[in-house]
Amino acid sequence: MRIGELSRRTGATIPTIKYYIREGLLPAGTRTAANQAEYDDTHAERIALIRALREVADLPIATIRETLHAIEHPDGAATGRHLGLALRALSEPLDIPDDEVDAYAVAAETVDITLQARGWSVPSDSTARAELIRAVVAINRHFPGGVTVEGLDFYARLAETVAEHEIPDRWDAVGSPTEALRYAVLGTVLYEPVILALRRLAHAERSQRVTRRQHGARAVP
Amino acid sequence: MRIGELSRRTGATIPTIKYYIREGLLPAGTRTAANQAEYDDTHAERIALIRALREVADLPIATIRETLHAIEHPDGAATGRHLGLALRALSEPLDIPDDEVDAYAVAAETVDITLQARGWSVPSDSTARAELIRAVVAINRHFPGGVTVEGLDFYARLAETVAEHEIPDRWDAVGSPTEALRYAVLGTVLYEPVILALRRLAHAERSQRVTRRQHGARAVP
Repeated sequence: MRIGELSRRTGATIPTIKYYIREGLLPAGTRTAANQAEYDDTHAERIALIRALREVADLPIATIRETLHAIEHPDGAATGRHLGLALRALSEPLDIPDDEVDAYAVAAETVDITLQARGWSVPSDSTARAELIRAVVAINRHFPGGVTVEGLDFYARLAETVAEHEIPDRWDAVGSPTEALRYAVLGTVLYEPVILALRRLAHAERSQRVTRRQHGARAVP
Repeated sequence: MRIGELSRRTGATIPTIKYYIREGLLPAGTRTAANQAEYDDTHAERIALIRALREVADLPIATIRETLHAIEHPDGAATGRHLGLALRALSEPLDIPDDEVDAYAVAAETVDITLQARGWSVPSDSTARAELIRAVVAINRHFPGGVTVEGLDFYARLAETVAEHEIPDRWDAVGSPTEALRYAVLGTVLYEPVILALRRLAHAERSQRVTRRQHGARAVP
């Protein structure tokens, strides 16, 4: 197809498509004349992935380029790694303030014991681990007892249940590696507000019920 | 105690304490001399709550004032409502773009059927419901099948499990209403990054396992 048709099919403007090609995110089309090139379905698929990474996951161009180059490696074990690479870029690396070294060490120990007990192999430079440690530091600062391994394990088990539900048994069930990665990144990012909003709704519902029950109990002596 | 001691105990500076009093967030101390006032534990507790609402939940002063005034109502059924009020302020109200009225109507139907089926009584102006609808609109835009009632119900059930774990059977087990509210808001906000980070870690772990399994399966014909 011509670039105009590619633009119509993907919803990306022609200048945007040309920008993706210039930035090395999208392979150039096959030249058919001095000023004309042909594009195919792989271009459309790739554009859908780039837009997901940019507009939904808000990744920088350099990270998107790195992720896309990784996809092109014809390596069977690669999809898991692409996902790791893309998800990694969604979080900030761990930057420990000088006066909180001890608080971070305590939190990191709780986190690492919990992850190890679940049998997860998390690299120590994982950014999701970094986010988890930061969150535990904040909770420890505000709650007297702080986060325990048992307390964190409750959430780790739930996360396992969610991941089993969300990630299919076979990557190739989803389609091409490009499509699989697009679904993985979109699924991770787009479902986050669903999970948080439902938890807030469940909190409101449960606190109403608890309050009603206490109220009722008080009315009947 | 004097204001200096109150400052030391709470970690809030004296100008901050005076600002809270001026803004009507904190009752003034009891005058003991022309230029001196006494404060007690309820002031310290209240300051801890204000800081949680401001620094962790990032609520505007006006909302904090409203929430604190609601606490002072000596009404047994109030705590549940305070929590609702505080949590409500954490989300943006639903503002539907003109060209997406249909997409929002479809998403709202999926959301409302799911919540009703679970027996949750969610007011139609709930901001958590608004966030949920916004998230469903985004998913419907990117995934061919979109969000179904069954799909959403999976997450709603999980949220129920989480809320049962997180909210005690009796509010008064936590302490005063001020303390209960502080814990509720802190717990809601501070545990959100824990839940999201663990889900990302579980995704990475599961995608590695699925990839290894497929790889292994391929090696043995």
